Amino acid sequence: MKMIKNAAGRMVGEEINGQEAVPFKGVGKHRPSGRKYAPPLATCIDYPGDNNKVVASLREALERCGLRDGMTVSTHHHLRDGDLVNNRIFDIAAEMGVKDLVWLPSASFPCNEPVIKYLEDGTINRIEGSMNGPLGRFVSEGRMKGMAVLRSHGGRVQAIQDGEVKIDIAVITAPAADFFGNAKGTGGPSATGVLGYAKADYLYADRVIIVTDNLIDLPCFPMEIEGNYVDCVVVVDKLGIPEKIVSGTTQITRSPDRLLIAELTALFLEKSGLLHDGATMQAGAGGTSLAIAVFVHEMLKQKGWKLSFGFGGSTKYMVKMMEEGQMGYILDAQAFDLDAVRSVEENPNHIPYSVFNAYNYHSKGNLTTMMDIMILGATEIDTEFNGNVVTHSDGLLLHGIGGWQNCLHARNVILPVPLFRDRIPVIVDQVTTLCGPGELIDVIITERGIAINPRRQDLLDSVRGKGLPLVTVQELKEMAEKICGKPEKAAFDDRVVAAIKWVDGTVIDSVRKVRS
Amino acid sequence: MKMIKNAAGRMVGEEINGQEAVPFKGVGKHRPSGRKYAPPLATCIDYPGDNNKVVASLREALERCGLRDGMTVSTHHHLRDGDLVNNRIFDIAAEMGVKDLVWLPSASFPCNEPVIKYLEDGTINRIEGSMNGPLGRFVSEGRMKGMAVLRSHGGRVQAIQDGEVKIDIAVITAPAADFFGNAKGTGGPSATGVLGYAKADYLYADRVIIVTDNLIDLPCFPMEIEGNYVDCVVVVDKLGIPEKIVSGTTQITRSPDRLLIAELTALFLEKSGLLHDGATMQAGAGGTSLAIAVFVHEMLKQKGWKLSFGFGGSTKYMVKMMEEGQMGYILDAQAFDLDAVRSVEENPNHIPYSVFNAYNYHSKGNLTTMMDIMILGATEIDTEFNGNVVTHSDGLLLHGIGGWQNCLHARNVILPVPLFRDRIPVIVDQVTTLCGPGELIDVIITERGIAINPRRQDLLDSVRGKGLPLVTVQELKEMAEKICGKPEKAAFDDRVVAAIKWVDGTVIDSVRKVRS
Repeated sequence: MKMIKNAAGRMVGEEINGQEAVPFKGVGKHRPSGRKYAPPLATCIDYPGDNNKVVASLREALERCGLRDGMTVSTHHHLRDGDLVNNRIFDIAAEMGVKDLVWLPSASFPCNEPVIKYLEDGTINRIEGSMNGPLGRFVSEGRMKGMAVLRSHGGRVQAIQDGEVKIDIAVITAPAADFFGNAKGTGGPSATGVLGYAKADYLYADRVIIVTDNLIDLPCFPMEIEGNYVDCVVVVDKLGIPEKIVSGTTQITRSPDRLLIAELTALFLEKSGLLHDGATMQAGAGGTSLAIAVFVHEMLKQKGWKLSFGFGGSTKYMVKMMEEGQMGYILDAQAFDLDAVRSVEENPNHIPYSVFNAYNYHSKGNLTTMMDIMILGATEIDTEFNGNVVTHSDGLLLHGIGGWQNCLHARNVILPVPLFRDRIPVIVDQVTTLCGPGELIDVIITERGIAINPRRQDLLDSVRGKGLPLVTVQELKEMAEKICGKPEKAAFDDRVVAAIKWVDGTVIDSVRKVRS
Repeated sequence: MKMIKNAAGRMVGEEINGQEAVPFKGVGKHRPSGRKYAPPLATCIDYPGDNNKVVASLREALERCGLRDGMTVSTHHHLRDGDLVNNRIFDIAAEMGVKDLVWLPSASFPCNEPVIKYLEDGTINRIEGSMNGPLGRFVSEGRMKGMAVLRSHGGRVQAIQDGEVKIDIAVITAPAADFFGNAKGTGGPSATGVLGYAKADYLYADRVIIVTDNLIDLPCFPMEIEGNYVDCVVVVDKLGIPEKIVSGTTQITRSPDRLLIAELTALFLEKSGLLHDGATMQAGAGGTSLAIAVFVHEMLKQKGWKLSFGFGGSTKYMVKMMEEGQMGYILDAQAFDLDAVRSVEENPNHIPYSVFNAYNYHSKGNLTTMMDIMILGATEIDTEFNGNVVTHSDGLLLHGIGGWQNCLHARNVILPVPLFRDRIPVIVDQVTTLCGPGELIDVIITERGIAINPRRQDLLDSVRGKGLPLVTVQELKEMAEKICGKPEKAAFDDRVVAAIKWVDGTVIDSVRKVRS
């Protein structure tokens, strides 16, 4: 495959799995042409007059939807590591003798390790989606037939909408559904709170299958999935393992270093003035992020301030902020713990809000561009402030992009990260894989100092002389190397095993097979 | 234009406004090919980073959206006869010197009479949508340049979805909106309750303008219109005249004949067993329908039954049923009075539900097919049970189709109508204009007897010997002629002034110019 250098200086292939690819041109530089993907027309003639679309089994549903060689099957990941349905799709495909499928999950989890056998036996050609843990290692070792394509949550819906990837069959697990196919994320034994990741799938897939363990009377509402788009409904005993779908409780970090980073971050938000009455904020569900949320909550209470809204993945700490009056609304694509699920059910100000609306770069504005404070992580950051979230320094593909690239478009992007993990520096000369350009990353906060991107003179000015431990990113890198030594570069073969897409569908980097 | 006879025996043109037309093939006989309409791709690059899309005026918005000759501009009719915005669009177009526009309203009202001057001066080529009162007369007199196209509410969204009609600019008046363009029907001085008619418009229009008199803080939710699809937001002083948007109160008929029809209808529902615990029902907002709702409500209370859900247009009588426990839910595309608007705001079981979901025949099932009881009106019904809702016996086009054709797909379609109006028979030999085939109309209930369609032997059996005044449709026609005399046929010229579409986009009939 011919490789060319993109605008970020990274070598990327001219095509991906036989389809022409556009190299990254710079932030905001690629203008799409053409039109949205147009699914085939349906007609009521083909659907039962009583609107009862329940069929006996997932196999029957897949057969009715015409599952065959080479098709693309999409799924969402709201059941996370507790998912009991997605692997079944490929068990059935293998039983049916179907080959060369493309699996388009919104994310995969360690529980999906069993699909490796279907990647090996040719049932699945490739996965386009995040590869966490064992699947990522499988890809990195060059064992997947097709090339992996990693997209952000927003990039995935952009690709679906734009027809870069065409979904033949979407299999949507739903914690509640009626016989017509209206479905939602609340209620029942496998509640996920919201189904925000499935929206592009049901709008653009040729065929849609709802799988539920909780068939309720029509109308199932609020309808996150509209029955008018649904072909079949399948009722199963159990969608997932509840304790692995949502955490009983999300846990704040106990590491003294991480707590220090969280405290420094809260302090930075206060001193810089980024935290103010009416501000908007998004953090994650990691231990450090949760600690930041707790510190910020305290500050808000002390000052009598209220955040205008927060964007989820929601956690009990966000819910607490809202319930105690320090956050107006939670807009939410994903509920991470039981308190968050309860809040979606009970509180009208906790609003399901799909990534299709929040993150799709090929729409008329994104929610993320109006977030004042964006807290994100990274596996590596380099001295140009470029970020990596998918590979480790050893070159192994072990994480998905999630919403990370989309969130980089917020007003102030802050990465609280440890200087090193397991004695491997996080701040490096050059990131192993480029996932986000440095021009979009504003602040790095470590336990040994805060580095502000020189492009953000306004932020530098806002905190000057306020007692914060300001350093340069170069200094951070040197400190890390002083402690851990200079890290070894990962050793790669030539073969490209994965393409990393940018939010606009262009290719920002490639991941190569690790040298064995 | 070459005319051909369609499957209902009606003469229809082979083309409409230069575009090929498919003649009606029979109920459930036309299978669409091809794909949904694909609007052009947008990109965040073209929208403000702070997501503030407010522009100074409707003119500026129309200019930014590139209004020019020949474009199609769509609007909804939730402001009904109180609308102060839709005529303004064409004032501005005329000021800009734009010609040959197509106006695609979801309905027009007498308040839209001023657009006649723009039909005369060439600003507007034609209206595709219902023509009530003065506009209908204008069309019937052969004074509109292009040919009118009348579609049901469901047919309109089918045509938009299928790309039969392509919306260049949708102008959506919204009782509440935020600066990003999220919008809803509740709140503010011009509340309409829901915005169900605007859904296809915002999903498929190339450009979308929100006009509001109530700009609220982001997030405006629940988002009936999603800001990601919106180009511009315009803030005006006043969207509409509240007392003409919704009735302060919808009024039950006081006519003794109509009350008798209502009572007979309720009796028929009871004796036939169509009314039962858990049934679903849809009626309208006319005086007779309201009286039927009151009678039915009483029966439900007496028997301790509860309707599963009702589909709106909602009225205070439906709201009362729900609030007193005789109706589970109201699914609602349109709120007709102040109690209905209040109910949408307050009651989570009063659910906005667009006609796009309920009525679009080119989707995977329609809500209407599962309605047990459907109460509809008609201007004429003939001895084959065919129905007309758009013209009067004098041939004048004076009404829109509304949801009438879509609702014919319910399980039991009942038309309570007077035997005559102003001494003109309603039951006739042959309808002036065919809007719905007789095979879909089950029961005609008049003040002088009930005629059941012979195709519905089951219904005939269900009420035999139960004391209802059963007659044949032939007998009804004869009674009407005995009282009123045989009605004169309308006198028409050859020229076709309007095409009547069926729910699947085929042409079921034509309306000709009345002879002057």
